[in-house]
Amino acid sequence: MNYPMIGYIIGNLLKVEAGLLLLPSLVVILYREDTLPAFGITILILLALGLPLSWKKPENHGVHVRDGLFTVGLSWILLSVFGALPFVLSGEIPHFVDAFFETVSGFTTTGSSILTDVEAMSHGLLFWRSFTHWVGGMGVLVFVLAILPRTSAQTFHIMKAEMPGPTCDKLVGKVRHTAMLFYSIYLVMTIVLIVLLVAGGMPVFDSMLHAFGTAGTGGFGIKATSVAFYDSAYIDGVLGIFMILFGINFNLYYLVLMGKSIDALKSEELHWYLGIIAVAVGLITIDILPLYGENLLRSFRYAFFQVSSIITTTGFTTADYSTWPIFSQSILVLIMFAGAMAGSTGGGIKSSRVAILCKNAVRVLRSMLSPRSVHTLKFEGKPVEAQTLSGVHCYFTVYMLIFAISVLLISLDQYDHVSNFTAVTTCLNNVGPALGVCGPLGSFAPFSSFSKLVLSFDMLAGRLELFPLLMLFAPGTYRKH
Amino acid sequence: MNYPMIGYIIGNLLKVEAGLLLLPSLVVILYREDTLPAFGITILILLALGLPLSWKKPENHGVHVRDGLFTVGLSWILLSVFGALPFVLSGEIPHFVDAFFETVSGFTTTGSSILTDVEAMSHGLLFWRSFTHWVGGMGVLVFVLAILPRTSAQTFHIMKAEMPGPTCDKLVGKVRHTAMLFYSIYLVMTIVLIVLLVAGGMPVFDSMLHAFGTAGTGGFGIKATSVAFYDSAYIDGVLGIFMILFGINFNLYYLVLMGKSIDALKSEELHWYLGIIAVAVGLITIDILPLYGENLLRSFRYAFFQVSSIITTTGFTTADYSTWPIFSQSILVLIMFAGAMAGSTGGGIKSSRVAILCKNAVRVLRSMLSPRSVHTLKFEGKPVEAQTLSGVHCYFTVYMLIFAISVLLISLDQYDHVSNFTAVTTCLNNVGPALGVCGPLGSFAPFSSFSKLVLSFDMLAGRLELFPLLMLFAPGTYRKH
Repeated sequence: MNYPMIGYIIGNLLKVEAGLLLLPSLVVILYREDTLPAFGITILILLALGLPLSWKKPENHGVHVRDGLFTVGLSWILLSVFGALPFVLSGEIPHFVDAFFETVSGFTTTGSSILTDVEAMSHGLLFWRSFTHWVGGMGVLVFVLAILPRTSAQTFHIMKAEMPGPTCDKLVGKVRHTAMLFYSIYLVMTIVLIVLLVAGGMPVFDSMLHAFGTAGTGGFGIKATSVAFYDSAYIDGVLGIFMILFGINFNLYYLVLMGKSIDALKSEELHWYLGIIAVAVGLITIDILPLYGENLLRSFRYAFFQVSSIITTTGFTTADYSTWPIFSQSILVLIMFAGAMAGSTGGGIKSSRVAILCKNAVRVLRSMLSPRSVHTLKFEGKPVEAQTLSGVHCYFTVYMLIFAISVLLISLDQYDHVSNFTAVTTCLNNVGPALGVCGPLGSFAPFSSFSKLVLSFDMLAGRLELFPLLMLFAPGTYRKH
Repeated sequence: MNYPMIGYIIGNLLKVEAGLLLLPSLVVILYREDTLPAFGITILILLALGLPLSWKKPENHGVHVRDGLFTVGLSWILLSVFGALPFVLSGEIPHFVDAFFETVSGFTTTGSSILTDVEAMSHGLLFWRSFTHWVGGMGVLVFVLAILPRTSAQTFHIMKAEMPGPTCDKLVGKVRHTAMLFYSIYLVMTIVLIVLLVAGGMPVFDSMLHAFGTAGTGGFGIKATSVAFYDSAYIDGVLGIFMILFGINFNLYYLVLMGKSIDALKSEELHWYLGIIAVAVGLITIDILPLYGENLLRSFRYAFFQVSSIITTTGFTTADYSTWPIFSQSILVLIMFAGAMAGSTGGGIKSSRVAILCKNAVRVLRSMLSPRSVHTLKFEGKPVEAQTLSGVHCYFTVYMLIFAISVLLISLDQYDHVSNFTAVTTCLNNVGPALGVCGPLGSFAPFSSFSKLVLSFDMLAGRLELFPLLMLFAPGTYRKH
């Protein structure tokens, strides 16, 4: 592996993280809080490591698939390790594993929290916590590469490893331009959302933090009851719609900007994504009617917000859905796995993979019915290559294997099956809340440090689509090839 | 489709079922019970339908893949419909859906029961109930084909559809001979087991029924506490070992008979199967030590029996494992999915598929580490063909889709998540007992008729490896091709 180049990229990344920490530091100063040393020391540590590492760009710029995966995996772990320091140094989350879990949950846009009293946190740390969602949503390495001078197509493998979805063909050759454009769309949409929330009467600070959580599809709440605190149909509606918007493949926004809105609307993945949302909202609305006095509008409001929050893997809540009928709960757990669209900030298996898996199952059945006809698997109007299909299948298998092993490992804590099963579901899919002890009103605090590390692994594996993380732990990575 | 030929085969099948019912009728006479009319009427109905259907063999013997799958799916449903009649007619299971569920559970060798007081059943019906395990274990259509005159290689597709496992290459061209040989091994092993159980002090009637349940890896208990009733280390040991033996691919016994024991022992699938058992028994033995007064031998006895019973998807119990630590319970749920070896009487995903899925995941990771090397997926010493791999992947996907949809459907009943999740797990994998309301000491009686039909579908889909059942419900099946 090209360690000098990996070191160079990681050095730059640490410098960027130091820069990002200036924003919460500003908040600390504005609110005259006493956590400035915690941020200051972290920034100094980051610069002390980042500056020497990135001092000189190595001669050999080559970044192969393996280097790309390795860099991404290692970067995200380091980001989280250093991002956890302000929580520990300020004493607001005294244990390092807890702070690490919280920061991984932030960067991976999961939103699962070990906090039992979020409202006791200071403004500066609450800001940093939600800001990690915003940074993690679009992928911080893509950002680093975009601002680095003369990054070439060789860094494509890094971008590919960090961007979610089964294929990444549209990005080749213009990494930098595309990344900048995506970040601009992301920034503009976030600002629009902040304005809309403030217009609805939400305080500016709260609006910014909820916008970060929505844009990154993260979902850290800053109130004990999450978004239910504001109890406003307007805010529920705005957040619900924006969560869905941030769960859409950013390539489609790119198409819209290029004046190709029709093409964007024709996206088959979009139809699957919106189709699943519509069915889930419809079924849950009917199922929870009796709970809300047969009030259709009220039921729809809660069903829409919860489905939107969960399928986009954001994780804000307006209702304690653990009191909903089991049928509705089961739908919510299922759509945790489905997840948002590829190329969005959302997690989960992704609509495109779900679509390809389902369509292929139908194709196989069809070819059994009439073995002599030719049955081609098509997606987005084009035949799916055998390699893509095999990649999706393999992804799904590894996903379920990691899922099963994780459930087994955290079951050592002796919590109930539902808590174990849904904790892994919510972490691996980057959703946030689960059921049982870590339900919408609960917290991940009760789990042991070991379980928290397993769940942190799951969050990172889910966000980085498995392979960068698996590579870090594969013995073969460190052997000569 | 070749309906005349399908009708002819099904006609013969119904006649065979009528013949099979003579055995429990004999038991009824021996015990002087009053359920003879229930059996007699069923036999008459079967003959009234079977004789005309099978009167004359059609000119066109062609049975294509599609006909094969269709015949198998339809046959198993009809077998269960008529097999349920004695329960209904005798009044011992008054509701048809309950009786159908119980019979499907029998033929598919699942062992899930809707009975709340099994000891109240008459001997004749208990016999029939356990006998369906024995019949279903080896596949009744294979038996029908084996006894039909001049069945040709054309019926290979039927045998292939009924035999579990990802490939079936060893059987081509000698269907009849192989089927007869397999049935002989099956019969001899069953008789040896009966003798061993009787030698251990189990009554003859009980020994026969437990042998049927073990041979078919079914697991219907005939006591309220299943095998725990006998509380004998000898019986636990004999049953535990025989369950594992019946979970082994019958091709290996064939190899042993051919004097190729070394080849049989080299089977990679066998190593996976025994490896998973060893790991599971080891972990559970340690985990449950405190429950059994730190007595290693006692812990091992219960762990070994339960693992053996669950991985082979038999489902006998000697301990109420729902009181075991959650870690042990999680292992048991996981090995429900793993299942026994292909070509055995057991259910589940099958060791060979698990092995291929795991090995391919490692291969993909390896090829990311060193993209220039060639990484071939090998199983049983031979490269796995792309088609086989894609078949296994597709199987796994469809399996999980059916699983998810089934959990959703039965969650309409409003039982807890653990009951819903494990009820589908146990039925789709043909295990038997679950957790929650349908735990080792519970029953499937509380579920609604709708849920019982969904679970019956799952049992049939699991036993017939999905496609025959899916075909029956696919609209395209009934269109002209």
